[in-house]
Amino acid sequence: MKKFYIAKSRRLRSTPYTNRIENQGVTAYTIYNHMLLPASFGNLEKEYFHLKEHVQIWDVAAERQVQITGKDSSKLVQLMTCRNLSKAKVGRCYYAPIIDEEGGTLNDPVALKLAEDKWWLSLADSDIGLYAKGIASGLGLQVEITEPDINILAVQGPKSFKLMEKVLGKKITELKFFGFDYYTFKGNKFLIARSGWSKQGGFEVYVENREAGQMLYDELFLIGKEFNVEPGCPNLIERIESALLSAGNDFDNEDNPYECGFDKYIDVESDINYLGKKALIRISKEGINKKLMGVLIDIDKIEVTESVSLYNNNNVVGDLRSATYSPNLKKVVGIAMIKKQYWDKTIAIELKINGKSSKGRLCDLPIV
Amino acid sequence: MKKFYIAKSRRLRSTPYTNRIENQGVTAYTIYNHMLLPASFGNLEKEYFHLKEHVQIWDVAAERQVQITGKDSSKLVQLMTCRNLSKAKVGRCYYAPIIDEEGGTLNDPVALKLAEDKWWLSLADSDIGLYAKGIASGLGLQVEITEPDINILAVQGPKSFKLMEKVLGKKITELKFFGFDYYTFKGNKFLIARSGWSKQGGFEVYVENREAGQMLYDELFLIGKEFNVEPGCPNLIERIESALLSAGNDFDNEDNPYECGFDKYIDVESDINYLGKKALIRISKEGINKKLMGVLIDIDKIEVTESVSLYNNNNVVGDLRSATYSPNLKKVVGIAMIKKQYWDKTIAIELKINGKSSKGRLCDLPIV
Repeated sequence: MKKFYIAKSRRLRSTPYTNRIENQGVTAYTIYNHMLLPASFGNLEKEYFHLKEHVQIWDVAAERQVQITGKDSSKLVQLMTCRNLSKAKVGRCYYAPIIDEEGGTLNDPVALKLAEDKWWLSLADSDIGLYAKGIASGLGLQVEITEPDINILAVQGPKSFKLMEKVLGKKITELKFFGFDYYTFKGNKFLIARSGWSKQGGFEVYVENREAGQMLYDELFLIGKEFNVEPGCPNLIERIESALLSAGNDFDNEDNPYECGFDKYIDVESDINYLGKKALIRISKEGINKKLMGVLIDIDKIEVTESVSLYNNNNVVGDLRSATYSPNLKKVVGIAMIKKQYWDKTIAIELKINGKSSKGRLCDLPIV
Repeated sequence: MKKFYIAKSRRLRSTPYTNRIENQGVTAYTIYNHMLLPASFGNLEKEYFHLKEHVQIWDVAAERQVQITGKDSSKLVQLMTCRNLSKAKVGRCYYAPIIDEEGGTLNDPVALKLAEDKWWLSLADSDIGLYAKGIASGLGLQVEITEPDINILAVQGPKSFKLMEKVLGKKITELKFFGFDYYTFKGNKFLIARSGWSKQGGFEVYVENREAGQMLYDELFLIGKEFNVEPGCPNLIERIESALLSAGNDFDNEDNPYECGFDKYIDVESDINYLGKKALIRISKEGINKKLMGVLIDIDKIEVTESVSLYNNNNVVGDLRSATYSPNLKKVVGIAMIKKQYWDKTIAIELKINGKSSKGRLCDLPIV
């Protein structure tokens, strides 16, 4: 595949860590919420094996926050998501699909409840702040909606626990999955959640002070030497194997949350009020005709830059949306939207890339 | 400056013309509305001189459309913009800044009125469709909001008129600036506006059928040979000299439309209803304390990837937001947000890039 440069500009925002990761050898970026998100340090497979064994520090500042404060903040957050947040607790993270009135999935942020009247939506790649502003203006809600200058550092991988304990002390080991709390390091307070865009375990540090974040970044590498720390980024191989969906890649607003497999985050039973509830009630009764599934293909490389049709005997089975070679499974792994009549997984699938035909099969998600 | 690759994926959408421009030598992309927008074919200065003398075909499919139809469509469009569209005519384009309730500038689309109940907002880089959906849901408006699969081809440069006349006949020469109409070529109908992201003259073809667009693309190159046609893209040098502002680069939602110089597109006098009107009335009375101005700097290269502070005797004058070397003026030209006390243009400015100090001065916009 030909490679192309990214034309940097102020609009594709740099992060407080950009200089550091460029000195450390980042080679490719994607753009996420109008910001640079590192995509590779030159060897995706090496980074994959390292992530699964050691610990990495990631510049994921592009996971921007929509901050919603004020009297009506909980009402507004609930209006945007099909997940029932009526019993949400301060100090907890909630994976909360954002949907529109037609039931289309607009984003899949992690919602952090910071106080009864203060929320952060830690976004995937779309301007949900504008959606929130529109709803709030239309309904005359008493809220303030901002994008605070929060720049997340993720610490991911099995050794992240030992590294963070060494940096922050025993207390961090008590943090439960999808919990968050405040920790002090060298006089600076950090909100830290046990979360992250890998299934290898770890933390996300919500950095509210740029200089403190840069100091922490450097210290994590210094202290992390004994844990074989490396710079990294969300890893395409790991995230596909683990089925950590990527909004815009694996689904978009043409797909409803049932089709994305978000069933357990959808409440159509209780009396909570959210946009799109009518649509989701209808869909829950009618059922869905497509859903996301895993795909295994017997080839040793692929680059998916747009939907790729999957066939069975010349019939379209669905479309492949993300895929990469897994050095673990020794084949290409992918995520695809599959039509209902092919969900049984027994069928053979075929796809054409650059005129060349390849064979594979469907599987469940997560793949590994 | 180090260069970095772009990590392509389905989320960074390709266009119907991506294969073509890659065969024609595109070297760099930016991302705009979650889509690939070509940024260079390898020689910005050569492309600049060519654009000013001949004709170029641009893949600007990333200028996505928000389509708003239905009984309340005009009401919703007006709610989002400070420009008075109450007398807007079908067949005309309107540069229409989109603002939020605080008066911040969210986008600066061209609004096309297609019918009394049908509008397109041809967007700069932010998800205004989500803003529209939020407002519509909040107010219960009778509208349908979609992103139709429209992929614009721009034909820009002084010879664009002769090329388009040869392709479409005499009728296209009667199209007035910022007017649009429908034209047929080889059995396909195209909506064409006399507009574009350069000041060199030209057209934007709103392609509604992918295959027809690809056919037109190829024909424009075939027929355009005698006019020395080349592939191109919005040119950083030309757009800065011409002060064609770039949302996210030159302004963002921290800047109100007065500060952006959009005064003639702001109506605080009549009784039209839009979000942020109260804020703009207040600002119109209080006046503004910063505004966009041109900058000339006595150096021969620059790459602006984030705001760069401008100084006068160690006092901050403002911040540089876009800049590039102009082979025409033999110095760097830029667009900066300047504090009120420095608007008189007589002062010397200074800036530091990579620790090196450079001198320059302020000027009016457009620069050329």
